[in-house]
Amino acid sequence: MKTIHIGVLGCGTVGTGVVRMLLERRDLIRRRVGADLVLKAIADIDVDRDRGFPIDRALFTKDARQVVLDPQIDIVVETIGGTTIAKDLILMAIQNGKQVVTANKALLAGEGIQLFAKAWENGIDLGFEASVGGCMPVIKTLRESLVGNAVVSVRGILNGTCNTILSKITDERCSFEEALREAQARGFAEADPTLDIEGIDTAHKLAIIIALAYGTDVRLDDIYVEGISRITPMDIEFAEQFGYRIKLLAICKRVDQAIEARVHPTMIPANNMLSNVNGPLNAVTITGDATGDTLLYGYGAGMMPTASAVLSDLADIARNLMTGAVGRMPTLAFQPDAIQTIPILPIDELVSHYYIRFFAIDRPGVLSKISGILGNHGISLESVHQKGRKSNASVPLVMFTHLAKERDVRVALTEIERLDVVCGHPTLIRIEEPNGH
Amino acid sequence: MKTIHIGVLGCGTVGTGVVRMLLERRDLIRRRVGADLVLKAIADIDVDRDRGFPIDRALFTKDARQVVLDPQIDIVVETIGGTTIAKDLILMAIQNGKQVVTANKALLAGEGIQLFAKAWENGIDLGFEASVGGCMPVIKTLRESLVGNAVVSVRGILNGTCNTILSKITDERCSFEEALREAQARGFAEADPTLDIEGIDTAHKLAIIIALAYGTDVRLDDIYVEGISRITPMDIEFAEQFGYRIKLLAICKRVDQAIEARVHPTMIPANNMLSNVNGPLNAVTITGDATGDTLLYGYGAGMMPTASAVLSDLADIARNLMTGAVGRMPTLAFQPDAIQTIPILPIDELVSHYYIRFFAIDRPGVLSKISGILGNHGISLESVHQKGRKSNASVPLVMFTHLAKERDVRVALTEIERLDVVCGHPTLIRIEEPNGH
Repeated sequence: MKTIHIGVLGCGTVGTGVVRMLLERRDLIRRRVGADLVLKAIADIDVDRDRGFPIDRALFTKDARQVVLDPQIDIVVETIGGTTIAKDLILMAIQNGKQVVTANKALLAGEGIQLFAKAWENGIDLGFEASVGGCMPVIKTLRESLVGNAVVSVRGILNGTCNTILSKITDERCSFEEALREAQARGFAEADPTLDIEGIDTAHKLAIIIALAYGTDVRLDDIYVEGISRITPMDIEFAEQFGYRIKLLAICKRVDQAIEARVHPTMIPANNMLSNVNGPLNAVTITGDATGDTLLYGYGAGMMPTASAVLSDLADIARNLMTGAVGRMPTLAFQPDAIQTIPILPIDELVSHYYIRFFAIDRPGVLSKISGILGNHGISLESVHQKGRKSNASVPLVMFTHLAKERDVRVALTEIERLDVVCGHPTLIRIEEPNGH
Repeated sequence: MKTIHIGVLGCGTVGTGVVRMLLERRDLIRRRVGADLVLKAIADIDVDRDRGFPIDRALFTKDARQVVLDPQIDIVVETIGGTTIAKDLILMAIQNGKQVVTANKALLAGEGIQLFAKAWENGIDLGFEASVGGCMPVIKTLRESLVGNAVVSVRGILNGTCNTILSKITDERCSFEEALREAQARGFAEADPTLDIEGIDTAHKLAIIIALAYGTDVRLDDIYVEGISRITPMDIEFAEQFGYRIKLLAICKRVDQAIEARVHPTMIPANNMLSNVNGPLNAVTITGDATGDTLLYGYGAGMMPTASAVLSDLADIARNLMTGAVGRMPTLAFQPDAIQTIPILPIDELVSHYYIRFFAIDRPGVLSKISGILGNHGISLESVHQKGRKSNASVPLVMFTHLAKERDVRVALTEIERLDVVCGHPTLIRIEEPNGH
């Protein structure tokens, strides 16, 4: 039976999970893959910490380069994270003829195209299933299962921190700040939660999804990103009243000659499968032109779910090594010479249904003023709801638009905001698959 | 660019979808796979029927053997169905060195092990992603994505006909017969619906899932199968009152040294993702010991979704042909020498929570008589609900049990049925993941 030697760079949460699976499931993997996947070395700054299960001390080194240069090692697993050392080590591994598996979405979203090209030139397999959606087979499904489909759209809940916070606001009508504090206390949010709550982590994953779905090189800066910190229990309440839930969605869609690419809080019908994805769980709806809607659901983060995705890459690469089929699958789902540049639709050009919520003085003529401005900009309303009555005091005014262009909506809102009968900033939430009320 | 020639046997619904995808998406497939997948021949008894899009008449033949023996053809797609001619043609294709893709779940469930062995001996890839769950990547996920997991359980809604009927009874409180008639009128059920409504089609798919999940040879007869024809709107109503939905589930679970393998109407909590799968849609929850619950959702049948799964197999095999890696993936997820025989737990040995509904005379002492018999057999009750009051007439009596052994429950029910205060047959529905009321 062929032996394949593996080196793990970085023994933090995910790396520890990978080490654990390789050590404890060697027999299961042997029975499935028909090869012996042997853990040869682990590089980490901290070689002494108890990882919760026995690891041979001799496997550890503080020198990651030693692992990358070890002539016996066939596959290098990069679970250090970040975009500096990790990148250098991956490039060094590729140049030394190692196959590579990484869970590093930030690196791939920013510099994936260059890394993938380098791997391809060197005849190296670069696996990254763990970079998007934890244990959900997002990469494999896009690249292999939907191979005969043109991808119509992908819509995903891809960040467990945001979903945990939004679920809590939804269930308990607490404030964003309170929900964030609790998520931090329970270990579902980092001390500095910016990457998660501002949607940046989700955008990283969306960039990778777009590359695979459309065979295009996408610049992270071209993705419109809006986080969840301005979501209030009031808007969640209104959403529910009209049959919606609010989720932070990553959305990409093919529209004519361009691609929509956006991350923002989104209203989706309560009976949509994505509406029932709560807490730290993730889900992705991939719509193919032959398959229609398909959905994957599962843990998008965490030690063992993410390690499970790394193992899936390791097994795939091991099978390629055994049959001399490295390079069998193009990294980005399309052959390198078929990668195109498809423009990303600027957010101003988006055509969508919108939920708009104002605070306006409850006085005759106010509604006609506001809807007049919207009408002047070509925005027609599906429905208008004034909540509560308070003569000459401000009350929430909720509007659902027909399809409208985002630029027009923004210009209209700026004008409306200037009215003295309107208080504070209006809230704007995009709607996917409107219920049509 | 390498050209790979494909022959399609059977141009019915799925076959037509495959032909359509091969003809209309040749360029997309070329850009992804890096090979030219060329449709070389189509065998069907009916070579004249309009399939709704242009097909070169010269591709058609009435002689399937001609396709299977054509030395130019690399991959044979079997979409004839049934277990006689289809089997002979697949064997003939294997013997002639053709790679094979089939959507034939009945054949694979009954004789898969022999066919897989024959393919393996001959160094042939045999793809069958389309046999379970239409476009959902059930086979790929079990075989490749969860490669590092021991599979704890699989629970699936795998038959669109049954799910359409149950959804209709749930939504409209109509009878099973009425729901079936409507499904037939709308093309969601066959004129003879036995295979679907009696759970047999679902059992075929479960047999394939079990083989892949556990690396075991399972006999179809060992799977416990109960259809949906006895489900009444009353039981669906009670299920809802207690926070459940009723779905026809295929269930397999590892329990000690055996495997639970069963298909039956099942109560699941209304907030379970599977509860929200309605109409013709399918879904599968796969629980791995590293991943936890993961779910796949999508169209489990239909021309284009099923054809999409066939295309995924064709692309995988094409990649193997291009890199000389045929046989890269063991057909049953485990290496042939690692296939074991794991016993299937007889249904009598099942330990589960149960919903039991009687019609009993509303008279003092009746409840104590019934619960006394249950108690004598070691069955304790979580809750008892008498619905309505009608002195000395029969009213529904609903009970939820704690964990109990099926054999004991059956013996007790037989005894209870004999009581003169109990009318008709009691209804027994197994519960998955009880709400714990």
